[in-house]
Amino acid sequence: MADKLSLLILNGANLSRLGKREPHIYGSRTLREISQTLTESFADLDLNFFHSESEGELILKLYDAEDSGMIRGIVFNAGAYTHYSLALRDAIAAISIPVVEVHLSNVFAREPFRRNSVLSEVCLGVISGFGEYSYHLGVLALKSHLSQKP
Amino acid sequence: MADKLSLLILNGANLSRLGKREPHIYGSRTLREISQTLTESFADLDLNFFHSESEGELILKLYDAEDSGMIRGIVFNAGAYTHYSLALRDAIAAISIPVVEVHLSNVFAREPFRRNSVLSEVCLGVISGFGEYSYHLGVLALKSHLSQKP
Amino acid sequence: MADKLSLLILNGANLSRLGKREPHIYGSRTLREISQTLTESFADLDLNFFHSESEGELILKLYDAEDSGMIRGIVFNAGAYTHYSLALRDAIAAISIPVVEVHLSNVFAREPFRRNSVLSEVCLGVISGFGEYSYHLGVLALKSHLSQKP
Amino acid sequence: MADKLSLLILNGANLSRLGKREPHIYGSRTLREISQTLTESFADLDLNFFHSESEGELILKLYDAEDSGMIRGIVFNAGAYTHYSLALRDAIAAISIPVVEVHLSNVFAREPFRRNSVLSEVCLGVISGFGEYSYHLGVLALKSHLSQKP
Amino acid sequence: MADKLSLLILNGANLSRLGKREPHIYGSRTLREISQTLTESFADLDLNFFHSESEGELILKLYDAEDSGMIRGIVFNAGAYTHYSLALRDAIAAISIPVVEVHLSNVFAREPFRRNSVLSEVCLGVISGFGEYSYHLGVLALKSHLSQKP
Amino acid sequence: MADKLSLLILNGANLSRLGKREPHIYGSRTLREISQTLTESFADLDLNFFHSESEGELILKLYDAEDSGMIRGIVFNAGAYTHYSLALRDAIAAISIPVVEVHLSNVFAREPFRRNSVLSEVCLGVISGFGEYSYHLGVLALKSHLSQKP
Amino acid sequence: MADKLSLLILNGANLSRLGKREPHIYGSRTLREISQTLTESFADLDLNFFHSESEGELILKLYDAEDSGMIRGIVFNAGAYTHYSLALRDAIAAISIPVVEVHLSNVFAREPFRRNSVLSEVCLGVISGFGEYSYHLGVLALKSHLSQKP
Amino acid sequence: MADKLSLLILNGANLSRLGKREPHIYGSRTLREISQTLTESFADLDLNFFHSESEGELILKLYDAEDSGMIRGIVFNAGAYTHYSLALRDAIAAISIPVVEVHLSNVFAREPFRRNSVLSEVCLGVISGFGEYSYHLGVLALKSHLSQKP
Amino acid sequence: MADKLSLLILNGANLSRLGKREPHIYGSRTLREISQTLTESFADLDLNFFHSESEGELILKLYDAEDSGMIRGIVFNAGAYTHYSLALRDAIAAISIPVVEVHLSNVFAREPFRRNSVLSEVCLGVISGFGEYSYHLGVLALKSHLSQKP
Amino acid sequence: MADKLSLLILNGANLSRLGKREPHIYGSRTLREISQTLTESFADLDLNFFHSESEGELILKLYDAEDSGMIRGIVFNAGAYTHYSLALRDAIAAISIPVVEVHLSNVFAREPFRRNSVLSEVCLGVISGFGEYSYHLGVLALKSHLSQKP
Amino acid sequence: MADKLSLLILNGANLSRLGKREPHIYGSRTLREISQTLTESFADLDLNFFHSESEGELILKLYDAEDSGMIRGIVFNAGAYTHYSLALRDAIAAISIPVVEVHLSNVFAREPFRRNSVLSEVCLGVISGFGEYSYHLGVLALKSHLSQKP
Amino acid sequence: MADKLSLLILNGANLSRLGKREPHIYGSRTLREISQTLTESFADLDLNFFHSESEGELILKLYDAEDSGMIRGIVFNAGAYTHYSLALRDAIAAISIPVVEVHLSNVFAREPFRRNSVLSEVCLGVISGFGEYSYHLGVLALKSHLSQKP
Repeated sequence: MADKLSLLILNGANLSRLGKREPHIYGSRTLREISQTLTESFADLDLNFFHSESEGELILKLYDAEDSGMIRGIVFNAGAYTHYSLALRDAIAAISIPVVEVHLSNVFAREPFRRNSVLSEVCLGVISGFGEYSYHLGVLALKSHLSQKP
Repeated sequence: MADKLSLLILNGANLSRLGKREPHIYGSRTLREISQTLTESFADLDLNFFHSESEGELILKLYDAEDSGMIRGIVFNAGAYTHYSLALRDAIAAISIPVVEVHLSNVFAREPFRRNSVLSEVCLGVISGFGEYSYHLGVLALKSHLSQKP
Repeated sequence: MADKLSLLILNGANLSRLGKREPHIYGSRTLREISQTLTESFADLDLNFFHSESEGELILKLYDAEDSGMIRGIVFNAGAYTHYSLALRDAIAAISIPVVEVHLSNVFAREPFRRNSVLSEVCLGVISGFGEYSYHLGVLALKSHLSQKP
Repeated sequence: MADKLSLLILNGANLSRLGKREPHIYGSRTLREISQTLTESFADLDLNFFHSESEGELILKLYDAEDSGMIRGIVFNAGAYTHYSLALRDAIAAISIPVVEVHLSNVFAREPFRRNSVLSEVCLGVISGFGEYSYHLGVLALKSHLSQKP
Repeated sequence: MADKLSLLILNGANLSRLGKREPHIYGSRTLREISQTLTESFADLDLNFFHSESEGELILKLYDAEDSGMIRGIVFNAGAYTHYSLALRDAIAAISIPVVEVHLSNVFAREPFRRNSVLSEVCLGVISGFGEYSYHLGVLALKSHLSQKP
Repeated sequence: MADKLSLLILNGANLSRLGKREPHIYGSRTLREISQTLTESFADLDLNFFHSESEGELILKLYDAEDSGMIRGIVFNAGAYTHYSLALRDAIAAISIPVVEVHLSNVFAREPFRRNSVLSEVCLGVISGFGEYSYHLGVLALKSHLSQKP
Repeated sequence: MADKLSLLILNGANLSRLGKREPHIYGSRTLREISQTLTESFADLDLNFFHSESEGELILKLYDAEDSGMIRGIVFNAGAYTHYSLALRDAIAAISIPVVEVHLSNVFAREPFRRNSVLSEVCLGVISGFGEYSYHLGVLALKSHLSQKP
Repeated sequence: MADKLSLLILNGANLSRLGKREPHIYGSRTLREISQTLTESFADLDLNFFHSESEGELILKLYDAEDSGMIRGIVFNAGAYTHYSLALRDAIAAISIPVVEVHLSNVFAREPFRRNSVLSEVCLGVISGFGEYSYHLGVLALKSHLSQKP
Repeated sequence: MADKLSLLILNGANLSRLGKREPHIYGSRTLREISQTLTESFADLDLNFFHSESEGELILKLYDAEDSGMIRGIVFNAGAYTHYSLALRDAIAAISIPVVEVHLSNVFAREPFRRNSVLSEVCLGVISGFGEYSYHLGVLALKSHLSQKP
Repeated sequence: MADKLSLLILNGANLSRLGKREPHIYGSRTLREISQTLTESFADLDLNFFHSESEGELILKLYDAEDSGMIRGIVFNAGAYTHYSLALRDAIAAISIPVVEVHLSNVFAREPFRRNSVLSEVCLGVISGFGEYSYHLGVLALKSHLSQKP
Repeated sequence: MADKLSLLILNGANLSRLGKREPHIYGSRTLREISQTLTESFADLDLNFFHSESEGELILKLYDAEDSGMIRGIVFNAGAYTHYSLALRDAIAAISIPVVEVHLSNVFAREPFRRNSVLSEVCLGVISGFGEYSYHLGVLALKSHLSQKP
Repeated sequence: MADKLSLLILNGANLSRLGKREPHIYGSRTLREISQTLTESFADLDLNFFHSESEGELILKLYDAEDSGMIRGIVFNAGAYTHYSLALRDAIAAISIPVVEVHLSNVFAREPFRRNSVLSEVCLGVISGFGEYSYHLGVLALKSHLSQKP
């Protein structure tokens, strides 16, 4: 797997409930199923998956990624932490790996508090509203971005 | 204990300090003592107790309760997380078990930031201001609510 | 009735319409039926009921209760006055009888203007969201509170 | 009068002073004169008039109208209560009769506090700025609306 | 047509889609059908109709009306421009012809941004919520207003 | 009493409780005692006193005063209505008698909501913070003001 | 003059222009004339007058008054400093002499920025809107207040 | 071209200046070059391009797309209109074609006014921050979305 | 005209009505007359004039000016677009020609919404309140600015 | 110098530091040099210069100018006092001499707090962003304004 | 070590990255190096160090410190938790040990969200902006504070 | 004294009252006593002291310090000017000497208006809450800072 581009797919608060949680909003597929589909779709990449409900563990994972020297980009769905975790924001700012913020639902068309992300300002870009395909687009965005770097 | 109605009494940030922490506000009895009194008062119920200072662990406990298939209702005192943990809010929304939000003190008569709960909108109801008896009322509210369900 | 604990169940704006008004929110039982059930449930108490659409009459009733020397606690559902009647707030603050604020619906899960109560700050506590059982819990809360007083 | 369509023309705070009160804003005709003109203009309707300075009495009148089973629509000028009486708002929401909110002056071209109505959201529609003719338009609006109902 | 009173019925953003656009909100009749009905209802008037999606063209039409010397009043449904077009506001203020602001739906009962009109302050009055009959009422309001002018 | 200058001392919400209500804020003298002292202090004036907890009755009293043709000035302590009763504001604006707004306590040094008066803008002036002597100063202010009128 | 009660009449920003400055708002009499009338009206008091355009000098004067040991009360018209000088506020709070805030015009009926006083919270009370008679009332308020102190 | 899926790539305010305008933010390639690359990348699709500086023309184009019956999806970069054009918002809501909002730069990491989009709430989703590749991702998102529809 | 310095005098919303529109605010001279006077006053310059009510056309004119290679500076009175047209703002930012924002009236002394300009931040400077002489000063400002450039 | 038009060039907080203070913002020339250039440029005028760091002294100078009977106009750069000195605002309002507010830098393109001037509302107009030439334009604006007065 | 004064140096979110994270803001030294220097500088003290990315663990550490009976003071750099962790705030309030809030950078000169600390209100004091020397000052502040206690 | 490092200890509004003013907040020692202790504690430094109640004089002192060429750092307690004196802010920004903002009390734990400093953004750092020892820490902070400069 050494020659493949390594990316991290990072999932935060409540994403372990995908498939069970409000399926009319988040779809009926589990995080495991979504991950499997991504792995199959991107056979040319080394996709790594991590999920935690804990803000602190997500911060540590961001640093692990940086310190590993292997991960070249991160697709991050922080769940509700998106809207208030300044600690995650500082962690993203503290690492040099580009991070793409993704959301399954269109967070701009839901409750007002979901319109504001404290992470966006330090991310490469944002993708929101395409169900599990948001992850797919996030991976493509990173591939494109990384291919332009010397 | 199989035939009893099972409820979870869930406690969040700083509630481990009850009895020691600002007793003029929170009373002089510990969480253990309060739990014991509740157990005695509700001999007809199967009351389960859990406390954590960690937002992530509280989320996991909510999911454990759901997945156990045993817990029929939750009395939740989230402490200060009440006022900003959108992750806990999403977890409550993600499970089907009814949750009653309780507070020992009258949170509406204290600092302005305590007036706002990000959890209330997804809870069954709110009980605030009756000291440890708030838990008692919360249990009764759940009993009443569950008895009306077919 | 002299030896029973006397409480006042006070109802404000639009509560006369219970049973007819938006039953999906407020339930299908009338205020009279609710009162009757309360009286039956608390045969050991002397429950007094009063309702008015008028802010001024509600203020006067609060003072009557105080001046009677009989009423030991008040369960108060002020209806929409909850959200702006500073005059009622001052009346509650002006009497020494403890007042418990109750709501049938979970006011925190409805229109934004219902999230703010100008009364809570001067009440003993708040109970919201348990239908007519909110009154029941309010009576219990007062009983518990009054039993702790010397 | 049995076969005529019955409507209620309801007037709230300070409208008893029409003709005397700031005539450059509200015109020089009294509420009685305006009512008479309306009655004459709509000989085919059974117009009923009620005025009160009291929020509570206005609420009661709304319920009387509903309970009478006669009134089919209400033209309501709540005066300054328009801007803060959530109790009136809830009363309008609690009845099934359609209510048209009217104002003599153009409330949007005066002091900022007059721009906000807490009633509009639960009314059929709003007519503002045409002097006493606003009532006339309100009646017409109700006639048109009621004629479309099966 | 020289002796008839001439009015302009002016329609702004997105009103060309009436009949097709969200019919549960705006009704199922097209702007053409509504115009025809108005013309028939007011055979004694010379009603002129103009619609544009362009803010600039609407401003020009307001000036054309003024410069024509023929138009005596304007019924204006500016669509979403109502809520932010200060340029239209200044144009209305710059002409001497009275303008009545109308809306098909009750704009005060929809999204918060629709509650604020930047035009109302310089209009004669506002009519909102009566479907296509709002235009009818607007024409009547102008007729009444113009008949009172010397 | 015909030749004396007639003034109205008008008291609103909760002022009937003076002497009993929070005496550290409002003093220990009743409204009756305060009125008696005023009458004695101003033997050269015809002082009339009225109190009501009801917003509607206060409005009616303002109109009665105007219609009596006798009252030349009003000293008004509206209690908590000061902070939200736009209906009282409109009533004050609707009469020609000058009104002086008075408060026993210094309302600017208490809860934030007491800093805002919706009445001040239509009153002659404001006097706040001198206990029952605020009424005394209010009477003097009116005497001085009325003596300057031709 | 030793046996008379000594008060300080303190004037701040722009009050030197009285008589010349916007006489429709502030009256046509100069500060000197107003001072003279006050001195004559209160022959039983030792009234001291000071005016400065400088915030710093006003602070120093407040301290001089305190340090003199003679001044028993202060009537203070701070002019526009009323609305932002937190330094003056701290100076008033730092001295033990009671201060009455006065204004010639009714500051609550003018520009919005004049509605807020940063001084009121640390003053004994506020008098606003009675022209130069506001000073007169301020002196009386202090006399009354000081006579109640042991 | 009949059998290919037809999409519209719609560009609004100031996007004609791409390549010349602030290239450190928007890149150095012109809109024409970007369009050409898209056409080449998606040979299996029928991509249509339209640009206008005019809000009105953009609205008309959205309606043309709907009326054509050919266009199945729209990738829309509205430029600065994104942040205030409620007229465009209503147009997007008025059509049934799904619209994906795209931005070249990460609008959440620039001036505060760029953080708010009035369009997002009625779009399928949002893609922001990937330079011209944002269009590429928008097309993919639509392809994926449309392939899931029956 | 080749050797003269070329400037563009650009006018936006409602400025075509100068002379007719609220002359107490905007003066009694037409845009044509003002332009003529400017041309005469600056015989040494090549002044070009353009006016449009359309936001889109104003944007196009800004780009035309840039692309012409002739225009060295722009005096821009955007009318009401000043307060919300972020599209015009982006257009000004996108060109390299310096733009001076001018207003006939003192926009800071009128309605609150006129105090905010979304254009100022990307303009060279602002001149407001000197009637048609504001244009004159704008031209002088540009001449001075351009003479300092190498 | 008797026959020349006399103007005052008034400078407030921190303008003594010109030339030394942040020259990339304020330029490298001192206030003395700027004054000298102005004097030379306007040999036909009697220009008077005054600077003070003190709010109180600036107020006094405004009054001196008024009382001198000589000064016909004032060009005023109040520095940071622009943004909060309501005392200076009242002083400008209190005199009859027209005042032009000037700024060296474009205050609208810097920190948010610099966007708001409490002085503009009572000034003739505002000129901002042209370096020392702002003073030059201010003098011209006054000359033009004064020449139009009878 | 028994006789030395024991202090806890507590570090929160992202401080493990010191030396690597944005060194132009936070300096180039690691937390370990900073700790070592502190230990050397304060040989007379028993300094204890703890770091965690987890809000819950930080709360537990605060309670451990209290329960140990050894720790006399805490120097706390909470990182981004400073700005929203009400749970940490309550924990600080719940213990009796004095806490000094420190920051490496001057948090008041960075992004607006960093200006607000939810912890300061319950801390002894705040030190911000002196790089790693902020810790040094924090230790000195505690030493001084503790030496004044009896 | 030539070889010692020279610092300025600058005190603003109301600090002359230390020892007399609210000693429970500010301590019981005078500014003179505090200065003396500082001088003794830092025998190796040349400490200079200056106090003024006047904003203008404080600005001048800051410039004197800069112009003297002797002062290497400033410890500044601006008192209440901290919260609104933008003129002082600009003066601090205009000089090159580093300034440390200090406060005796913990300004973040008092009235809300004291939480905001307009000076912090242009200071080196902030120290608040350690009584007179705040000055001591401020001197140490400057010493440390200056020792790191080449």
